[in-house]
Amino acid sequence: MLSLSKIIDPVNGDLAKAENSLKSVGEVQDNHLSELLSYALDIVGKRIRPALTLLTGKLYAYDLDCLLPMAAAVELLHTASLVHDDAIDKSTVRRGRPTINKLWGEDKAVLLGDYLFAKAGEFCASTGNLRGIKLFSQTLATMSIGELNQAFNAFNLEQTREHYFDRISKKTASLFVLATESGAILSQSPERSVAILREYGYNLGVAFQVVDDILDFIGTEEELGKPAGSDLAQGTLTLPAMLLLRYYPEDNPIKRFFQDRGDLEAKRRAVESIRNSPIVEECYDIAASYCARARQNLNLLPDNASRQALMDLTDYIVMRKK
Amino acid sequence: MLSLSKIIDPVNGDLAKAENSLKSVGEVQDNHLSELLSYALDIVGKRIRPALTLLTGKLYAYDLDCLLPMAAAVELLHTASLVHDDAIDKSTVRRGRPTINKLWGEDKAVLLGDYLFAKAGEFCASTGNLRGIKLFSQTLATMSIGELNQAFNAFNLEQTREHYFDRISKKTASLFVLATESGAILSQSPERSVAILREYGYNLGVAFQVVDDILDFIGTEEELGKPAGSDLAQGTLTLPAMLLLRYYPEDNPIKRFFQDRGDLEAKRRAVESIRNSPIVEECYDIAASYCARARQNLNLLPDNASRQALMDLTDYIVMRKK
Repeated sequence: MLSLSKIIDPVNGDLAKAENSLKSVGEVQDNHLSELLSYALDIVGKRIRPALTLLTGKLYAYDLDCLLPMAAAVELLHTASLVHDDAIDKSTVRRGRPTINKLWGEDKAVLLGDYLFAKAGEFCASTGNLRGIKLFSQTLATMSIGELNQAFNAFNLEQTREHYFDRISKKTASLFVLATESGAILSQSPERSVAILREYGYNLGVAFQVVDDILDFIGTEEELGKPAGSDLAQGTLTLPAMLLLRYYPEDNPIKRFFQDRGDLEAKRRAVESIRNSPIVEECYDIAASYCARARQNLNLLPDNASRQALMDLTDYIVMRKK
Repeated sequence: MLSLSKIIDPVNGDLAKAENSLKSVGEVQDNHLSELLSYALDIVGKRIRPALTLLTGKLYAYDLDCLLPMAAAVELLHTASLVHDDAIDKSTVRRGRPTINKLWGEDKAVLLGDYLFAKAGEFCASTGNLRGIKLFSQTLATMSIGELNQAFNAFNLEQTREHYFDRISKKTASLFVLATESGAILSQSPERSVAILREYGYNLGVAFQVVDDILDFIGTEEELGKPAGSDLAQGTLTLPAMLLLRYYPEDNPIKRFFQDRGDLEAKRRAVESIRNSPIVEECYDIAASYCARARQNLNLLPDNASRQALMDLTDYIVMRKK
């Protein structure tokens, strides 16, 4: 498999410029805020989302004056949502480091997230593109609905696959759509291409989340940067868990754990059962089918190095271990 | 004293239209979200902030196509920040009703607040005015800094008046500035008037918060919609508390309470001491001085019914009991 850095080679240099914009967010006078920001922004994440904005932007008129701030906005929106997610879930570890809420308290994490949403909005506004700005606000609304849906359904066993795909479309794929659609809009793509890149972002985003949900069961703590089985621990029923419930409707360890959240042995058994079952393969097939659709979307676009990168990303998304 | 409704008479009809826009935010398919929204939006608040946007907008070219969505954006931003504040402070009562976090949990409150920020952003974006949109994002950032500052200084006795005024400028006055400055921008006011209305919003906002901080000591639970002394309970050192500390540096009940948060008798004594001291009058004088500056700002503007309403609001701000 190609490395992520190799795949996104056409925009690596410009991605570094977007990262510099992000770093500049940390340059504030207030000491407390400055400390929080440098911790929150000092994450060497995958930067897939801003790379998507730049890559889709490079299919047509590559205007960095607006693509760079939009790429920064997309990444900051992602960071802000992670900060809030961790505070809400009372998570203690992310990417191998203590979370903001663990170190500074939930109150600071919520307020820092608000600040990051605002700075993301400022970057987005600085593109001067009203369509992109509206899409940005709508995306935050959609993501919040997805997260609310997850919160309201914590430890609820009565959820269907449709609920699952609706939720991950909102909480995850919508941000991928923002990344690709805004890149298309800001590079003056023809409307047909905007719609195609929107679809591509949606399919890639769904595949990404399905793989994330698989990795939460099969990954090592080192790869995940947090303990395996975190979703179950939060009461979040993801696709692998749903399939285990379907195949073993009686005496299922997930049922046991959801009914008695202190029964950590049941949780451990649930993780083991999924890890050693064909469910993992079945979920990977589903993720791969979304990636196949994403590639079909791209077939309709002009061929160049950026399109190839977007193609290769569909493989990376499925093969990645973290 | 004139009633608030009487004061803002020139825009009462249009304010009702802005409220209808707000109500439309609650019309969503998701049942859980719909329930949360109807609860959060069903608050008969004072609506001072959206009234300010409409009143300042009415000084020049009164363009409701953009002023109404901006008024809605300003009020939603306010609502969102209250929802987050309550979640952060773990407050149980606001305006005489249980808070969202009390009824649905802090996680839902944080996510609902995010959703409301997003919807506020959508309303703001629909004005199509880039300058207003930038100001909106900057305001959310500034408010978050003010709130972070408050959170980091909870139960900290070593704070100066400068800290206090800096904090309330950020957490409260900035939103008043957004309300008045956006009204000015969207009604094509001359730049000099935009600057004046910005100043007016700042002075009015500072006065508003000083009075809020007085009322937290002298108001009844019925007037406040929450117990008196809530600020002290959260460890927030407001102007009246700072003055009590200055006048009684030794054996001060605030010091005792901050050092032992279980000492509720000390808290009660602190509230009583302020309530029965000239500190209340001193704080009112300070609020009145900001209102006087706000009136001086207005003297520089053309005289009409809206200007009179903005004048009268400076009296209302100080005289109000809740």
